[in-house]
Order: sequence, then structure tokens, then C-alpha cells
Amino acid sequence: MSDKTRTDNVVSIHGRSSNAKDSTAIDRLQELTAADMTLVNETVMSRMQSPVALIPELAGHLISSGGKRLRPMLTLASAKLIGYDGVRHIGLATAVEFIHTATLLHDDVVDESTLRRGKKTANLIWGNQPTVLVGDFLFSRAFELMVKSDSLRVLKILSSASSVITEGEVLQLTTANDLSTTEEKYLEVITAKTAVLFAAACEVAGVVADRSEEVISALEAYGRNLGIAFQLIDDAMDYSSKRATMGKNTGDDFREGKITLPVILAYRRGTEDERKFWKRTMQAVRQTDDDLPTALATLQKYGTLSATVDRARHYGEMAKDALAIFDDNSAKTAMLDIVDFCIDRAY
Amino acid sequence: MSDKTRTDNVVSIHGRSSNAKDSTAIDRLQELTAADMTLVNETVMSRMQSPVALIPELAGHLISSGGKRLRPMLTLASAKLIGYDGVRHIGLATAVEFIHTATLLHDDVVDESTLRRGKKTANLIWGNQPTVLVGDFLFSRAFELMVKSDSLRVLKILSSASSVITEGEVLQLTTANDLSTTEEKYLEVITAKTAVLFAAACEVAGVVADRSEEVISALEAYGRNLGIAFQLIDDAMDYSSKRATMGKNTGDDFREGKITLPVILAYRRGTEDERKFWKRTMQAVRQTDDDLPTALATLQKYGTLSATVDRARHYGEMAKDALAIFDDNSAKTAMLDIVDFCIDRAY
Repeated sequence: MSDKTRTDNVVSIHGRSSNAKDSTAIDRLQELTAADMTLVNETVMSRMQSPVALIPELAGHLISSGGKRLRPMLTLASAKLIGYDGVRHIGLATAVEFIHTATLLHDDVVDESTLRRGKKTANLIWGNQPTVLVGDFLFSRAFELMVKSDSLRVLKILSSASSVITEGEVLQLTTANDLSTTEEKYLEVITAKTAVLFAAACEVAGVVADRSEEVISALEAYGRNLGIAFQLIDDAMDYSSKRATMGKNTGDDFREGKITLPVILAYRRGTEDERKFWKRTMQAVRQTDDDLPTALATLQKYGTLSATVDRARHYGEMAKDALAIFDDNSAKTAMLDIVDFCIDRAY
Repeated sequence: MSDKTRTDNVVSIHGRSSNAKDSTAIDRLQELTAADMTLVNETVMSRMQSPVALIPELAGHLISSGGKRLRPMLTLASAKLIGYDGVRHIGLATAVEFIHTATLLHDDVVDESTLRRGKKTANLIWGNQPTVLVGDFLFSRAFELMVKSDSLRVLKILSSASSVITEGEVLQLTTANDLSTTEEKYLEVITAKTAVLFAAACEVAGVVADRSEEVISALEAYGRNLGIAFQLIDDAMDYSSKRATMGKNTGDDFREGKITLPVILAYRRGTEDERKFWKRTMQAVRQTDDDLPTALATLQKYGTLSATVDRARHYGEMAKDALAIFDDNSAKTAMLDIVDFCIDRAY
């Protein structure tokens, strides 16, 4: 998978654009799940309410900020894929979105972020105190919704996912400035902090629909591999100028000394001088204004952004193969296409 | 209940000591639940483990800091009271302790506390980032333990309690500097942030033991009223010099401008000048070194610490009456005595 000769264009990682195809894929998934998503959105709005006005105000700031709702959409699409005709997936999709939102609120406090989806973060507007607590509130509400599913197995999957997510975040925190982090360790972190929720989002649809273990594990594998691919692309895009159009800053991870695969690979492939550069900027986090351009040029020199995208493509292919056991239908097509969409975001 | 003529001694609120009786009551409850508590402690230790070493390190710092384990003890005592001979209460008592511990970790971040149970807080030692995340981890582990109880009703009670707790904390945050807070609003806050978990801790024992609704609601009422009494005493003790012996500082609430019943009553009972004093110190939180002694003297002048203890005694009596339906046994005696213990802490 190593590809030292290819050079990256950090603006457009592979130098081509496929926006037309991208919008079609996400549109198709949105269309497919539109009716159910209306119900999910209604449940989101009603379950984030509280007589304590600050709670819906703060939660609503993030929830209404134009996130793609990708995770709940995966629950809904999975339910469609397997022909589930009940209603229990609505509450679960909402729970998944709440767990994700709670995680984002706490992440922004932990990372002292100021910008999310192009808007000021809740911690910047209201401070850390209510942001931590409203995150806790949404976590609790997620569990209340899960309890309503009346399925202990669903509760087991999602409560275990929550544990693993936070475990992954602490692991990331403790390995964040460690350039000796291996690719395996990095994969462990992104699996825990991102892929496990994608996996659970898909898996629970199979469980409430009471499908076979083969179906349930296929959905889990699809979600998990898609989640890994998604996070790999996110980490590559952090070094892309396209980032700015998403309301985020290019090089956030670099500035925080958060070590992700593009840097892990560049460190390993680099010269002694380059390693010194990474140690100073990422490990000691002593940086000057010139360092981000140097970092970008070095990632480009070793092709580590495109290598990261290649890794993502590998997991994307596994996600698609996981769906091979299902008959063709519009849900399956949309779920296959969304894999490419997630990867092609990088272009 | 108003008592303007009595003067408080802030050192020993009613000027008498009942330490001998206190230690007997807590000892008796501890003896009663000792065998089960060994199992709870084992479960606590095993369930807070993680391959991510920082998690047990940080969680263990607080968990092993000599808390009384009052909440899980209530689950165990309730199970004894009703003659439950299963094992499902062990995991639930552990879940209750984890929810409580997670709340403390987040509280200390939110309040920027530096001292808890006489030790440096986790946020002071490790920073806010891992403290928030390890709190989330313990929350998730609590839910995993609850799922193991195999009872959807237990899950409903504890997940709803978690929502209410965080709701109460946000409510407290938004009303914290508001001197016009009514006693009713204050009771709402302490019921949510403290009493609901006490109530749930007792109630779930009745549920896993499959007892009648009468039994379950009696346990809930006992826990809820005990919890209100407990928090009232905590808020009175914040102004007591005995506080220092518990590893906390006298006047923490005052310095933070956190408005609790002793101040609510003193504000209402005070002169125009005294109200100006409270507005400056608690609402605007502009304080000099002389202000805490002045505040203590003013609380003493209007007897609001002893009035707060009287309020606590009222809820304590309701807690005791809730147990009237049960036959006398050693558990009942211990649970009755612990009510007095919680109130007599103030002396």
C-alpha cells in the first residue's frame, strides 16, 4: 500500500473532482430515508426539549447546524435494506444521533474548539460548564430512547459502543503527541472513536428487525469498515484546503499536535531532519507560522495524504463486500454509493 | 418553619454534638451491607478497568478516595430490607456508584474544583480533557451494568434519573447567581441533582426483587426524601467550619456565588443593606476577604443555617415514614438511623 513516488496535491488530493457524483450519492441516500428521517428529526426535536431552556437552546445550536445526519441515516438505510417494517428504528436512529452529538459537545470542550460546521462552538458561546452538562443530558436521553426499543441486545450494543468510544478518545488523548504511534494503534483509536458507532448504527437495525446473525454481522461489518474509511478521509482532509469550505480550519490537527496517519507515515518515511521537524512541531508542539506550509509540503513529498485515501479505499471495499449477501435493492445501491461518497469527499 | 430569633453557631449549628450516635448509625449500615459491599467493590474495580491505563488511574483516584459509598449502600440495604436473595442488586449498586462518580468528575470540571474528599481533584492533576472523557466512560459502564440486570424497568428508572440529574445541574447553573430563586425552585434543583439518584438507588432494589408497587414506591419515597435532606445538610455545612475536616473549604458555595437555601432565606429575611451585600457578593460575585465572615454572621443573625437543618429534618421524617409499611428488621433500623445520621452530620 506504500506509495512513495506519488505526490499529493493538498488542495485536491488526487487532482480530480467528482462533486457531481458525490451529491448524487448523498441525495439518493437522503431520498431513500426521507420519510423516516422526518420522524427522526421530530423525535430529535421533542427529546431534546426540557423545561430548562438552556438545554434545547444549546443542544439545538449544534443539532440544527446542518450536520449530514449520516449515522442515523445508516440506521434508517439498514432498516430499508432488510425490509424492516416496524417503527423501533426511529428511536434508535435518534439515540445514535444523540450519542454522536454528545460526543461532539464534549470533544469541543476537550479540544477547546472554536468552530464546528462553520459556526461558533457551544463551548465558545455558553462556556464549558453547560456544554459538558448538556452533553451528559443528551447521553442520558439517548439511553432513555434505547430503553424504549424494548431490546436488551440493542441496549447492550449501544452501551458497549459508548464505552468503547470514550475509551478510544482517552486513548487518542494519551497517544496524541506520540510520533511512535503505529498504524495499528492509530486504527485501534479510529475504530473505537468513530467506527464502532457507525457499526452499532447499522447493527441495531438488524437486531430490532429480528434478522439472522449473518445479516446482523454483515450490517455491523459494513458500518465498521465504512466508519474507518470515513475517519481516515477526515484525517486526510484536515490537511486539505477544501477543509475551509466545511467550516473548519486547515491544519487543526497539526496545530494541536494530534498525530494521524498522514503524519505517522511521513514521520516513518522521512529523513532525520524531517523527523526532527515533526518532533518539534507535533511532539513538543512548538510551532511557527512557517511550519504548516512545511508540513503540507512534506506530506506531499511522501504522498501520505493519497496513501491515507488509499487505506480508506481498502476499508471502503470491505464495507461494500459486507453487503454482498443482500439482494439488490435501492437501499443497497445507496449504501454502496455512500461508501464512495465518503471517500470522494477528499477530492 | 421560619425562625428569626434563634442564632446559629456556624461551627456546631445547633450547639450540640452527637458523634457517638452518628458513628453507630453508619457503622451499623456498613456492617449490614458488608458482604454485599465487598462484591460491589470488586465489581467497581473490575468494571473500571481498561487497556487504556489512564482510565483506571484517573477513575481510581476518585473511587478510592474514601467516599462513603452511601448511594450503593442504599441499594444493598433496600435489598436486605425486602429480603431479596438474588444477586442482581450488586451490579445495580455498582452502576449507581459509577453514575455518582461520573457526575462528580464532571462537576469538578464544571466548577473548576481543586479539592474533593481532601485530595486534589482529577481535573487538577490530569486536566479537564481526560476528566470529562473518563466521566463519560463511567457513565457508559454504568449503562452496561444496568443492561446486565436484564430489567427494562430498571433501565428506565436509571436512565431517566441520569437525564434528570443533568437537567438539574444545568438548572442550577442557570439559577446559580439568581437571588430571586424561590425555595421551591431550589428544592426542584436539589431533588433533580441529588434526590433522584438516592430514590433510584432504593427503588431498583424493589424492582429486581419483583416486589409490589406499594413496596417499590415506598423505597422510592424513602430515597427521595433522604436525598433532599442530605443535600439540604450539605448546603448548610458548606458554611460550617466542620467542613474543613471533610477535605472541603468553608464557604465554597459563597465564593462561587452558588445560591443555596441558607442564603435564599437570609436574603428574604434581610434588610435593604444586607440585600445589597448579597447582590454584590453572590449575584455580581465581587468579593473581598471580609465578605465571608460578614456572610456567616448574617446567616447566623437570621438563623438560616438552623432553619435549613429544620427543613432537612422535615424531609428526614418523611423518609422514615415511608418505611412504616415494612416489618421491623435490622435493615429497617439501620435505614431509619441513617436518616438521623445524614442530618446530624451538621452538628
